[in-house]
Amino acid sequence: MNEKGSALMPKILAINAGSSTLKWKLFAMPEERVLASGLIDRLGQARSTVKIKFNDQKLSFDQPIKDFHEAVVDVMERLKDLHLVAHLHEIKGVGHRIVAGGEHYAQSVRITPAVLADITELGHFAPLHNPVQAKYADIFSRLMPWAVQVAVFDTAFHQSMPPENFLYSIPYDYYQRFGARKYGAHGTSVRYVTQRAAQLFDFEKLIVMHLGSGSSVTAVQNSQVIDTSMGFTPLAGVTMGTRSGDIDPSLLAYLMDQLDLQDIHQLIAILNQKSGLLGLSQLSADQRDLEAVEAKNPQAKLALTIYANRVAKYVGSFAAAMNGVDALVFTGGVGENGGEMRAKIMAHLGFLGAVIDPLKNQSRGREVDLSTPDANVATWVIPTNEELMIARDVQAQLP
Amino acid sequence: MNEKGSALMPKILAINAGSSTLKWKLFAMPEERVLASGLIDRLGQARSTVKIKFNDQKLSFDQPIKDFHEAVVDVMERLKDLHLVAHLHEIKGVGHRIVAGGEHYAQSVRITPAVLADITELGHFAPLHNPVQAKYADIFSRLMPWAVQVAVFDTAFHQSMPPENFLYSIPYDYYQRFGARKYGAHGTSVRYVTQRAAQLFDFEKLIVMHLGSGSSVTAVQNSQVIDTSMGFTPLAGVTMGTRSGDIDPSLLAYLMDQLDLQDIHQLIAILNQKSGLLGLSQLSADQRDLEAVEAKNPQAKLALTIYANRVAKYVGSFAAAMNGVDALVFTGGVGENGGEMRAKIMAHLGFLGAVIDPLKNQSRGREVDLSTPDANVATWVIPTNEELMIARDVQAQLP
Repeated sequence: MNEKGSALMPKILAINAGSSTLKWKLFAMPEERVLASGLIDRLGQARSTVKIKFNDQKLSFDQPIKDFHEAVVDVMERLKDLHLVAHLHEIKGVGHRIVAGGEHYAQSVRITPAVLADITELGHFAPLHNPVQAKYADIFSRLMPWAVQVAVFDTAFHQSMPPENFLYSIPYDYYQRFGARKYGAHGTSVRYVTQRAAQLFDFEKLIVMHLGSGSSVTAVQNSQVIDTSMGFTPLAGVTMGTRSGDIDPSLLAYLMDQLDLQDIHQLIAILNQKSGLLGLSQLSADQRDLEAVEAKNPQAKLALTIYANRVAKYVGSFAAAMNGVDALVFTGGVGENGGEMRAKIMAHLGFLGAVIDPLKNQSRGREVDLSTPDANVATWVIPTNEELMIARDVQAQLP
Repeated sequence: MNEKGSALMPKILAINAGSSTLKWKLFAMPEERVLASGLIDRLGQARSTVKIKFNDQKLSFDQPIKDFHEAVVDVMERLKDLHLVAHLHEIKGVGHRIVAGGEHYAQSVRITPAVLADITELGHFAPLHNPVQAKYADIFSRLMPWAVQVAVFDTAFHQSMPPENFLYSIPYDYYQRFGARKYGAHGTSVRYVTQRAAQLFDFEKLIVMHLGSGSSVTAVQNSQVIDTSMGFTPLAGVTMGTRSGDIDPSLLAYLMDQLDLQDIHQLIAILNQKSGLLGLSQLSADQRDLEAVEAKNPQAKLALTIYANRVAKYVGSFAAAMNGVDALVFTGGVGENGGEMRAKIMAHLGFLGAVIDPLKNQSRGREVDLSTPDANVATWVIPTNEELMIARDVQAQLP
């Protein structure tokens, strides 16, 4: 059988779309083999970039792609041109990452016109993402009508959270009338990691640290999410690359006065885009940049210290939410590769009985048990794989 | 010697002023005996209330008191009329609770014109309190010029917090330019409790839960505050009687849109006055009211569950901040008297090695070690005494 697969081998496309980017990954199922992946960037600008990886090849093209429809057509044509599929009908399903699923979607679903309408409607929870993602799902449905289209929600896995953790202490009717509650994010990642952890070791109570440019901490007990650090939106929780995480609500009013802002959305944009590690360090949102200079730049060091501190404090708070924890897992770009940051975080957590081996902690990007032999709480690195989780969810919906 | 004291016995007045209330307590020092306490309420309204307690007597008067100056004159005259002092010159010092001390005031200070100006200026951090408290301090200075006037700041004890805990992950220049950081509150209470705890048992790492209509959790290590749950203002942190505590900053923008509010200060007022237990239960801000009906009112039960959950999560997060904890202390009205709430909170904290005896936990309003004999982390109730702490700070400034 040819490396690129035969017409008989079902293929699944996992789609992760933003307003100016379209990421995709093509899987051969059910063996879960990645055939190719691609990225279209700077969509709608004069010079868009198209990148594709398959086997050992990396291709890159600059060409104008003016809208979502052209982007989808470009993906389909390249899959054929590069012989990644002999025929597009081999693609039996397409899975779409959707940021906000609200309270209705606690799992992945086949996309119907009603589901598409819901996703668009849920755009008031994720105005930058849901409408775009619905649009892509609609285009793929029209251009590949033979393929099952599946929506995979970032929030779905968190829907098991109990009210005592998802409710804010605000007037209860704001929850009833406006859906004002904690939804979380990174749910697909946490679900993947939780399932993988269950194959690797025994636990009842797990805390997953998904650390990257967006970062979250999630408490899982008996495969159900108990609590998560992101909130109504992905702005809340721990310090992130450019996002503030939690702040005193009063501070928003004070800062609007001091900065003479008329519109709170201007301040929310600052908290999303100019805060976090970038705002604290005044240097970079990227931990690697800060680690490179922290020995001689106290502000960079402080930003990293604060990041570790906020993650560790959420771990402690979730140990309290569950009255204990059996295992900790690091995932996401920083969680998988950032040994220095892992060490900074773990320096807070000896009291839980979690102790890591500095030698094992030099590991990058692979599954590893970091724990010392006498640790009472296991600490692992488990690289996440959201696209594979999406492909599996599509596979489960195939006829 | 007469119970009401002699001219030779120095007396100290502790003042706790709000915009429409004036609370005072008269101490005989250095023996720290309370001679009398009083409250003027509904100041500036048609019918103000004056209440005074001394020995076993409780007096109450209704009379118009139109402004701060009249309120101070009323206190002075009643002290004489009721023979609580033979002569006002016996009062050697007056201590004033000040809500916001900013970064400059890490301890109590004698009030000078420069200090008064500072307190007024710090009013942008506490607009409802500092200007009023400065005004009272000024009036007492003029009417009792022989007495040492001392400012005791709610924020002072928290000034030992390290930057990794007092900084928010926002653009660093907002801290430099506007003082946007965590200041905390309840500092005078936590300082009293910490000092008292040190007389009662050994510890290095202590977590104090000051639970009342305003509630906070504070981490103390080697007598220094490490972290505290209240933030830039007392709105942040755990669920309170009417205050929300922490919420996703994005939620403020969303709620302003949904509620069609033009001014963020309107929303902050809702988060301060109509949220917390009151907002969740839609019934009462008072835990006793909710406990009375929780068996048949699921919403009341949920509000209490959330309150306990948020306090416990902060305790867990501060255990992580310090990498461990030796002792927990409950204080404040609910912390001292609310055995049911203490039990709800402690149900989360067994993982720390903190276990309480249900029989001991029936105790109300007195110092008690609640721990079981085999607990690894001690759990105490220590009633707070902010007024005594104020009186001691004044005593320390007497010539």
